[in-house]
Amino acid sequence: MEIDLNADVGESFGRWTLGDDPALMPFLTSANVACGFHAGDPLTLRRTCASAVENGVTIGAQVAYRDLAGFGRRFVDVPPDELAADVLYQVAALDGIARAVGGGVAYLKPHGALYHAVAAHEGQARAVVQAVVEYGGMPVLAQPGSLLLRIAAEAGLPTVTEGFADRGYRPDGTLVPRGEPGAVLDAPASAAEQAVRLARAGEVRSLCIHGDSPGAPAIAAAVTAALQDAGATLLPFA
Amino acid sequence: MEIDLNADVGESFGRWTLGDDPALMPFLTSANVACGFHAGDPLTLRRTCASAVENGVTIGAQVAYRDLAGFGRRFVDVPPDELAADVLYQVAALDGIARAVGGGVAYLKPHGALYHAVAAHEGQARAVVQAVVEYGGMPVLAQPGSLLLRIAAEAGLPTVTEGFADRGYRPDGTLVPRGEPGAVLDAPASAAEQAVRLARAGEVRSLCIHGDSPGAPAIAAAVTAALQDAGATLLPFA
Amino acid sequence: MEIDLNADVGESFGRWTLGDDPALMPFLTSANVACGFHAGDPLTLRRTCASAVENGVTIGAQVAYRDLAGFGRRFVDVPPDELAADVLYQVAALDGIARAVGGGVAYLKPHGALYHAVAAHEGQARAVVQAVVEYGGMPVLAQPGSLLLRIAAEAGLPTVTEGFADRGYRPDGTLVPRGEPGAVLDAPASAAEQAVRLARAGEVRSLCIHGDSPGAPAIAAAVTAALQDAGATLLPFA
Amino acid sequence: MEIDLNADVGESFGRWTLGDDPALMPFLTSANVACGFHAGDPLTLRRTCASAVENGVTIGAQVAYRDLAGFGRRFVDVPPDELAADVLYQVAALDGIARAVGGGVAYLKPHGALYHAVAAHEGQARAVVQAVVEYGGMPVLAQPGSLLLRIAAEAGLPTVTEGFADRGYRPDGTLVPRGEPGAVLDAPASAAEQAVRLARAGEVRSLCIHGDSPGAPAIAAAVTAALQDAGATLLPFA
Repeated sequence: MEIDLNADVGESFGRWTLGDDPALMPFLTSANVACGFHAGDPLTLRRTCASAVENGVTIGAQVAYRDLAGFGRRFVDVPPDELAADVLYQVAALDGIARAVGGGVAYLKPHGALYHAVAAHEGQARAVVQAVVEYGGMPVLAQPGSLLLRIAAEAGLPTVTEGFADRGYRPDGTLVPRGEPGAVLDAPASAAEQAVRLARAGEVRSLCIHGDSPGAPAIAAAVTAALQDAGATLLPFA
Repeated sequence: MEIDLNADVGESFGRWTLGDDPALMPFLTSANVACGFHAGDPLTLRRTCASAVENGVTIGAQVAYRDLAGFGRRFVDVPPDELAADVLYQVAALDGIARAVGGGVAYLKPHGALYHAVAAHEGQARAVVQAVVEYGGMPVLAQPGSLLLRIAAEAGLPTVTEGFADRGYRPDGTLVPRGEPGAVLDAPASAAEQAVRLARAGEVRSLCIHGDSPGAPAIAAAVTAALQDAGATLLPFA
Repeated sequence: MEIDLNADVGESFGRWTLGDDPALMPFLTSANVACGFHAGDPLTLRRTCASAVENGVTIGAQVAYRDLAGFGRRFVDVPPDELAADVLYQVAALDGIARAVGGGVAYLKPHGALYHAVAAHEGQARAVVQAVVEYGGMPVLAQPGSLLLRIAAEAGLPTVTEGFADRGYRPDGTLVPRGEPGAVLDAPASAAEQAVRLARAGEVRSLCIHGDSPGAPAIAAAVTAALQDAGATLLPFA
Repeated sequence: MEIDLNADVGESFGRWTLGDDPALMPFLTSANVACGFHAGDPLTLRRTCASAVENGVTIGAQVAYRDLAGFGRRFVDVPPDELAADVLYQVAALDGIARAVGGGVAYLKPHGALYHAVAAHEGQARAVVQAVVEYGGMPVLAQPGSLLLRIAAEAGLPTVTEGFADRGYRPDGTLVPRGEPGAVLDAPASAAEQAVRLARAGEVRSLCIHGDSPGAPAIAAAVTAALQDAGATLLPFA
């Protein structure tokens, strides 16, 4: 039972700090590093990539809409040719920084509103895949059923599915919408229990923890311990 | 007598167009492509790099301060560690886009206020050189006497000097300051004459034409013809 | 027969110039001045407002999504409370600049994708109206049938409808979509003819000319002459 | 003995929170609210102004260079005409938001690198004063000896001097430079003691507390208590 643990990191920007990356990083096997369009000034990216390399964590490009004010959480109706260029720019920028500190971008995961859009928006999903292919190809990480994964697979890219350790699921397998009771599992024990359940079910190769919640390191610690107790091996997919 | 002809291109941004890159590109041997911080949205960069590749023009990274509103023409007192990361980010982003269309970044030239700052500002000059070294090394282009070139050479980087075909020089070899009579040579014949003079003097390996003036393509055409008549070979340095 | 002639102005940004505002301004009765979110740096806004005051042209706030890279032409799914604050910020900023040069903001017209969104998107339309009300109230300009106008009227704001002099109409009164033949009327004579037809039909109080096309001043001149020949009085609505 | 207590607030931006404004606000008599150029998205500004109004705190415009990535802490060599327009834009935008929630901008204090620049840079100091005059005039807040205050006074504006409760002073009255021992007074008791000393000396009408340090509310509470114990009346200057 091999499972990967991923979280968003590098989402500070200049004077503003978000999340506790140094505390979270040691628990991750894959780090979704911001690329500057929704968060992550270049110096933050450099430090984040250096920390990932030090901790032996695989680096992924967390590409996003160009929207600092909205933190990439607002859908933007970007034409596909612009989006493909925006994604290529972000992946390349982060990869250059990662290589300068001894790492490199090994996979791609869209952020925020782009993550949700490419689950169904064909033009934008194709744009993201185009950029990945043009950059040489790498695994693409998304939720099961995302259109992005189907298009990526058709383009010959490796695809990886993820579940959410700290989000509530409904019996039908869909997420409890944010704002409803049970949408977020704040208690480390609840997230740990769910992580084990998801790992055992075997439908996802990676588990996501939301890195910008104050309790993220504690959740990551509990999830890691529970997975190891359950006999799982924490291993990056890329 | 080998000489290079460079100009700034890719300086449009979204809805705004600057310069006439398609008309100018065929005359260049080296294209200083914007990197997104002072100008150049990713789709513009992609089209510009594709045009450079089609025309057999060498691509350089025209790195700048993060200042769209000021077009990179205002000095910004960026701490060296931030500037180094900013430059690395820009070079890598442009290189990724250039490689996607069959090219690649082959040299670096700072833009605007950064160009002038690194002629004397040691902290910022060292930051630019650090970024180039970390990205793997490439030639650095600047005016003769620039501190940037000295520091680049000490770091083992190739250095290239440039003169200005369409700017007036004083007898002592310095430029006529902008705003004074004779600062800019608008007439193609004057620029052509000066280009030949500079090429013959042999002190610079590249000649720069200001791409954002309306007459840039006509000046480039006249300069090219005059240089060839004078027996010069137009050849990129990188 | 009183009719207003409006166009977008102030859409340059830093080094980038868009449109020929000085040539266009004398023909307008109402100037939709950008507010800095899709275009228009503060110095450009100042010069544009000063030119409007000199020419006796009424100043309107052309509010937009925060999207310089997309020139406000991409829908952004901004939550209503954020949008209301964004619009209030823009109107107030432009009004302060306008007052400093002897004018003032007298009406509001949404720009680009926001213009189209508020024709049907209730949350965003209400956000725009809220901002106008909170700023003290002013006329709102939009196309006939726009949801924005209905909500503005319910809030007690004056509403004004506009037609497009230089866009093609279909027999049912809707615009020929961009990209289809006849979508844009480039010929000044065609725009002038349509302007007279729209003015005579009496369904719109203002006519819009697209200020960012190279031929805008010629179109404005032809439209003005034709309207005057037809006995119309060019008069701002605000 | 009347003294004012001011601090920077409204410096969050989108997803990023800075400082603990709700805890700090009740202790202030004057709130330097960011204006969007170095920090402060419009919705944050609205909430901050509303909180100031609720707490009976006077609102000031904390104008800055356009530099989100640098938080306005890097000198930018902005030409005076651009800076004057930038400042006017910011003051007007914040004032519009403040008026919408029942307040209004009552004074101006430059932020960060602009604060330091206008202490000696005549062109930029004159630009700031020009903007204030054009907006109708209001008090200007700065450190004693700042060139800004001299130029503001010459222009007929009220001027107010401030001291720093939580920064160390040298015997000659200048600040201990940041990075040296004693530059920052973290202990509430030390700041309180210094605040009383500065208030008694009578050379400044306002005391500044740095709102972005984690201990700011505790320092503000200690300073307030000590000032009241010493018989001072906390009263806004504007």
